Amino acid sequence: MTLPIAVLEGDGIGAEVVPVAVAAAERALAAQGVRAQWTPLPYGAAAIDSHGSPLPPETLTELAGFDVMVVGPHDSVSYPLPHRDAPPPGAVLRKHFGLYANLRPAQAIAGLPATAPDIDLLIVRENSEGLYADRNMAVGSGEFMPTPDVALAVGLVTRAATERIAEQAFAAARTRRGHVTVVHKANVLRLTTGLFRDVCFEVAQRYPDVRVDQQHVDAMAALLVRRPADFDVLVTENLFGDILSDLAAELSGSLGLASSINCSDTRVMAQAVHGAAPDIAGRGLADPIAMVGSVASALDFHAARHRDRRVAAAAEALRAAIAATVAAGIRTPDLGGSSSTAEFGDHLVAVL
Amino acid sequence: MTLPIAVLEGDGIGAEVVPVAVAAAERALAAQGVRAQWTPLPYGAAAIDSHGSPLPPETLTELAGFDVMVVGPHDSVSYPLPHRDAPPPGAVLRKHFGLYANLRPAQAIAGLPATAPDIDLLIVRENSEGLYADRNMAVGSGEFMPTPDVALAVGLVTRAATERIAEQAFAAARTRRGHVTVVHKANVLRLTTGLFRDVCFEVAQRYPDVRVDQQHVDAMAALLVRRPADFDVLVTENLFGDILSDLAAELSGSLGLASSINCSDTRVMAQAVHGAAPDIAGRGLADPIAMVGSVASALDFHAARHRDRRVAAAAEALRAAIAATVAAGIRTPDLGGSSSTAEFGDHLVAVL
Ligand SMILES: CC(C)[C@H](C(=O)O)[C@@H](O)C(=O)O
Ligand SMILES: CC(C)[C@H](C(=O)O)[C@@H](O)C(=O)O
Repeated sequence: MTLPIAVLEGDGIGAEVVPVAVAAAERALAAQGVRAQWTPLPYGAAAIDSHGSPLPPETLTELAGFDVMVVGPHDSVSYPLPHRDAPPPGAVLRKHFGLYANLRPAQAIAGLPATAPDIDLLIVRENSEGLYADRNMAVGSGEFMPTPDVALAVGLVTRAATERIAEQAFAAARTRRGHVTVVHKANVLRLTTGLFRDVCFEVAQRYPDVRVDQQHVDAMAALLVRRPADFDVLVTENLFGDILSDLAAELSGSLGLASSINCSDTRVMAQAVHGAAPDIAGRGLADPIAMVGSVASALDFHAARHRDRRVAAAAEALRAAIAATVAAGIRTPDLGGSSSTAEFGDHLVAVL
Repeated sequence: MTLPIAVLEGDGIGAEVVPVAVAAAERALAAQGVRAQWTPLPYGAAAIDSHGSPLPPETLTELAGFDVMVVGPHDSVSYPLPHRDAPPPGAVLRKHFGLYANLRPAQAIAGLPATAPDIDLLIVRENSEGLYADRNMAVGSGEFMPTPDVALAVGLVTRAATERIAEQAFAAARTRRGHVTVVHKANVLRLTTGLFRDVCFEVAQRYPDVRVDQQHVDAMAALLVRRPADFDVLVTENLFGDILSDLAAELSGSLGLASSINCSDTRVMAQAVHGAAPDIAGRGLADPIAMVGSVASALDFHAARHRDRRVAAAAEALRAAIAATVAAGIRTPDLGGSSSTAEFGDHLVAVL
């Protein structure tokens, strides 16, 4: 069996962490008898030079043939105009392929310091609408300026999109500690986040075995600091999920270690939460843990969809290899270590 | 000289913490030779019973004659319909009186545990527009449902409102550590939060002595955990300010201790960040620190506006009295103590 995987390295530290994740996953899959077929595609600043766009049409066309993609960070604020002012390519990918769910676990890694060592969360972030106006129009943009001094943004919540993200959250809770917290701000954004809340509670009725409660997003931010262990799965709209997932990641150790996938029902994109970190790029300082973890989660997704135990085992092995490498004291400078990105990667592969 | 102050006790623990704040401020002002004239007005659940509305027209009319108001928490989710589904009265007050700035300091109290003991922030939150759709319409609501399955919310950023909130932030920074961080999400909400960012940087030019930088709201949430001491004043739109101020308050010790004022150029409303806490109401368990601190900040505002040193001294004395009372071990149960709300209040007054 062959597993085709598209690889978009991206900018900055992408050129360092993505190859580590690919090498580790290659090994983990091979150990299970699965042959991965990696296809690199033009993306990011390099693609502006070679193809005139950070996300060339050729890349989008090719990607349509892949169910699994590994996507590195982009540094879109440093792109030349007009690309700098266009939506970031990572966001365009989510929209183009209808990757409506962004799943972001937050859990401390044994042996590493954490503000909230007992946090063990899965944030299920709606990725296709909400207050992210750029997602909300089939044609045109959800923001506009009627005069140069007035800007408007249209937030959107639909029953259909809320139902499918709520399904993801409740289904995930069944495989975890069976508890979903719906995060909204329905005391102010009464109709939009109110609809989100109401539909989530309707979906909850199909999962009588899962406990459901709710929090306002402001209180939720404080509660993640005060009593993080009380929460299991959070389900929320796009912007709240963006903020809370960065917060939860930092509480669990470091934003730099946070992994994530974006998925539809059939397609998955591994994408670390961190950015391109141009300040440390090219010097072997980057921590590949987030990227490797993201690829492991993407393999989980593929394994669940195809009931493929070998791919599931490879994902599990990747996570175990991260833990073993950290435990062996192989750490990049962000964790106070002196290993390079490549040394971390070599150790990972050796463990695998 | 008499200083007229309106008092809206509100719901739940309001009936306990507001009287403590009034008694302490009365004493602090009297010690400076200032006679406060306190006028209680109907507000909250009690006003539904007596006047048919949590914010009766009579209260609004009376309030127009006051520059300083002390407002307790409301428990609007427990109001009978239709009041439960109406905008919360505390938010209506902000809109009605054009209280466009919400100032929320976050600083640890000496001797009390804090996740971030070195945090010392002022969050300057725009209070009149932004993603808070309920603020954004002169007529009607900024949210609507074209079909029962689709809800839209209109976010708004204007040059005028951004200029005046930025002025508040930069002026405040001059009295602090001279550093403003503009918090936005202009990589996604490009036009709205982009306009906010751009106007803040324009205003920054009038304050060459103040250092200015910027963060995306998601990164900001993580940075408040990672290196809180690096920030002085944050200026941001309504929703981001709501979330970040709860987070910062919790990091500085507890959301329950966080004070805040809402103000226009001429009017100020003291309003603690915490809610009505109906679960502990009426039992003497409530911590009045946030309410007393909010009244102190309101007195600061009044003192600055009228260049009144006696009122400024009273505000300073209130803060010193909180510190002295906590240092004397008089603490309510939320801080692990066994003092009642009233005992804390009595000690405050004795110190003053
Ligand atoms: C880069 C940015 C557009 C993106 C987002 O806001 O979704 C990022 O912050 C994330 O969370 O993946
Ligand atoms: C009660 C609620 C409407 C209010 C807000 O969101 O502004 C509160 O959370 C606050 O921060 O003062």
